[in-house]
Amino acid sequence: MPIITLTTDFGTKDHFVGAIKGTIYSELPDARIVDISHQITPFNITETAYVLRNAYKSFPEGSIHIIGVDSELNEDNKHIALKLDGHFFICPDNGLISLLTSEIQPEKIVEINIHDRIETSFPVLDVFVKVACHIARGGTLEIIGKLITSYKKIKELQPTVSEDKNSISGNIIYIDNYGNSITNISKKLFNDIGKGRSFEIVANNYSFKKIHKKYSDIIDFSHPIEQRKMDGSKLALFNSANFLEISIYKSNLKTVGGASTLLGLKYRSVISIKFN
Amino acid sequence: MPIITLTTDFGTKDHFVGAIKGTIYSELPDARIVDISHQITPFNITETAYVLRNAYKSFPEGSIHIIGVDSELNEDNKHIALKLDGHFFICPDNGLISLLTSEIQPEKIVEINIHDRIETSFPVLDVFVKVACHIARGGTLEIIGKLITSYKKIKELQPTVSEDKNSISGNIIYIDNYGNSITNISKKLFNDIGKGRSFEIVANNYSFKKIHKKYSDIIDFSHPIEQRKMDGSKLALFNSANFLEISIYKSNLKTVGGASTLLGLKYRSVISIKFN
Amino acid sequence: MPIITLTTDFGTKDHFVGAIKGTIYSELPDARIVDISHQITPFNITETAYVLRNAYKSFPEGSIHIIGVDSELNEDNKHIALKLDGHFFICPDNGLISLLTSEIQPEKIVEINIHDRIETSFPVLDVFVKVACHIARGGTLEIIGKLITSYKKIKELQPTVSEDKNSISGNIIYIDNYGNSITNISKKLFNDIGKGRSFEIVANNYSFKKIHKKYSDIIDFSHPIEQRKMDGSKLALFNSANFLEISIYKSNLKTVGGASTLLGLKYRSVISIKFN
Repeated sequence: MPIITLTTDFGTKDHFVGAIKGTIYSELPDARIVDISHQITPFNITETAYVLRNAYKSFPEGSIHIIGVDSELNEDNKHIALKLDGHFFICPDNGLISLLTSEIQPEKIVEINIHDRIETSFPVLDVFVKVACHIARGGTLEIIGKLITSYKKIKELQPTVSEDKNSISGNIIYIDNYGNSITNISKKLFNDIGKGRSFEIVANNYSFKKIHKKYSDIIDFSHPIEQRKMDGSKLALFNSANFLEISIYKSNLKTVGGASTLLGLKYRSVISIKFN
Repeated sequence: MPIITLTTDFGTKDHFVGAIKGTIYSELPDARIVDISHQITPFNITETAYVLRNAYKSFPEGSIHIIGVDSELNEDNKHIALKLDGHFFICPDNGLISLLTSEIQPEKIVEINIHDRIETSFPVLDVFVKVACHIARGGTLEIIGKLITSYKKIKELQPTVSEDKNSISGNIIYIDNYGNSITNISKKLFNDIGKGRSFEIVANNYSFKKIHKKYSDIIDFSHPIEQRKMDGSKLALFNSANFLEISIYKSNLKTVGGASTLLGLKYRSVISIKFN
Repeated sequence: MPIITLTTDFGTKDHFVGAIKGTIYSELPDARIVDISHQITPFNITETAYVLRNAYKSFPEGSIHIIGVDSELNEDNKHIALKLDGHFFICPDNGLISLLTSEIQPEKIVEINIHDRIETSFPVLDVFVKVACHIARGGTLEIIGKLITSYKKIKELQPTVSEDKNSISGNIIYIDNYGNSITNISKKLFNDIGKGRSFEIVANNYSFKKIHKKYSDIIDFSHPIEQRKMDGSKLALFNSANFLEISIYKSNLKTVGGASTLLGLKYRSVISIKFN
């Protein structure tokens, strides 16, 4: 039985997530259901894209991913199901798969068309779960939708490279649990454009000329522990998802703050890299 | 093996929920445990009733629901277990089953009386889990309690209808993850009293003369997207649980606010409907 | 298949927890994974120690506990795996097992040394999960590490007893979901030193001469309900984890506050007990 994952902006207080799991278990008693996140900022498609892209790859091929963010069906917001990289995704066509499709072409996309049989104000429960269970039982995408080739893309997920290939301009697309500010600039793009040149990263009024391999690289372990400058130091690094990230070492967003608050690097802030 | 669900006000930081799951798995290695919510506002029985009523129906018959909200045993707060609608509920007798029993009569209720064997300051772990595992193994309610017929009810969950049947007065009983303000007025009551008449809903100083079918119904899709008035529009609709809800379209409680904060429709606020 | 539990400071919004579960399921399709907590205050080792100590005992022997708090590998922060009380723990050597080892000696500890095969900025995913799956398949600790006998301890978890054995001085080590302030003074220590003598507990300017058995013990049920003083009363009791706790009856940390905010008993506040 394949795994079914859930990525939503429903929060974990309301009954929504429990109702979805109950419905899946009612149809598939042996289901394995995994929560990826229910704490997506309401209606935030960029956050959804970032979390989904970084989580799905760890699951086995054949996993089915339900994404419930801004999923009300209307003229501008169709429901789609797709197969990509051996995984299935069931979601609204609102651009949240942009980060996936910018790296890997979908094998197949359908626009879900079982709605004429279902009138609902809770489509994730009534439509997406039904589609997921259909796929889990071995059903094909063609039975629950019609093949399509175009789908929405969101632009803010893509950084831009200057014509002379000497600079990259990106944005903060995600703030993580520690207040780290994560950009849309991947390690691959950085290396492809930089080709090993020295560089300066500028974000707000802060400048970084080095990219660290891990957070504690900024600590000088040759000093005794009580003389080390540690907490509160800022650094740039590629995070485990291979995106450029600005961090404050051992920050705490709920007390002293993190890079997002202390350096003013909020969602959508601009960050630029100049290569020499 | 039946599903065991958990609905509590324990939060997810402390060790409580982990300890409960560990105990269940120690007794029943094949258990399927599902979190409904651990984010109930501490000691809030009305919220518990709302979440439980809307989640349990999605689970298969025979599911066992543990509810740990305000569950310390004392003279005023007995522990009960009941069978209702084919499901089992284990909870304190503090009124939280009122929303269930207002719709469906319990088949059987017992006052749990295994406490003489257990001295505990964590009854959900030490008593409710034991009862749940007993039921999961096919045990009967009579073995862990004595049959009773009366139980506590909470009044604020019930709206009132005027004598002339021309108006309904209700309350906000729940604020959801998006800041939507949910009333205790069901679609069924609205239709039974309204009988298709035109109406005016008044909540604070706001008035609504239409009930929408879904959130995006307030958007005029005939206008190009950049000319549409969208975010920030207020509307009334019956939510997926079939309760009347006042909403701000695409609101975000953590940033700009939702209906609960922007319209001042907080927990226990009054809402009234006048039919013409 | 043994249970694998997760205790981290990752939060539940980011992709981290989903990625870990996906990786475990990819290696062990029949895994049973249980979240203990992902809401540990970032880098807070004391909180981790408290939550872990109180949760692990409820799980069956042989369970494998992954702890991801302040786990970046560096000169000062090795990775260890240990067997204690029939359970396995995989964690950084930063003192978080102090509460466990102060009560029960580890049977075996190894310093994990598989890192030369793995370069990673997400060691919980890339190293701890690998070790957990190795143990779950029946592998021994010696294969993934070298035996060690010393490990870090944190002092603030231990209260001090005066030389004349007439007083105990402790600290608040944890604030729970209700705002209760929990000390590092165990019921066992209290009884061992107090030997049944009368006592005075002083915390900030507040004094307690009685320790209650449960929260509602402070209510006088002989009065009719509307004349009872209930919410807002402060009390001392041993909580279900058997640590001395200062509580406000039915407090709500998010609205009126709890003992931590109303009595100023925050993390690391001092509390003392004098026996007569």
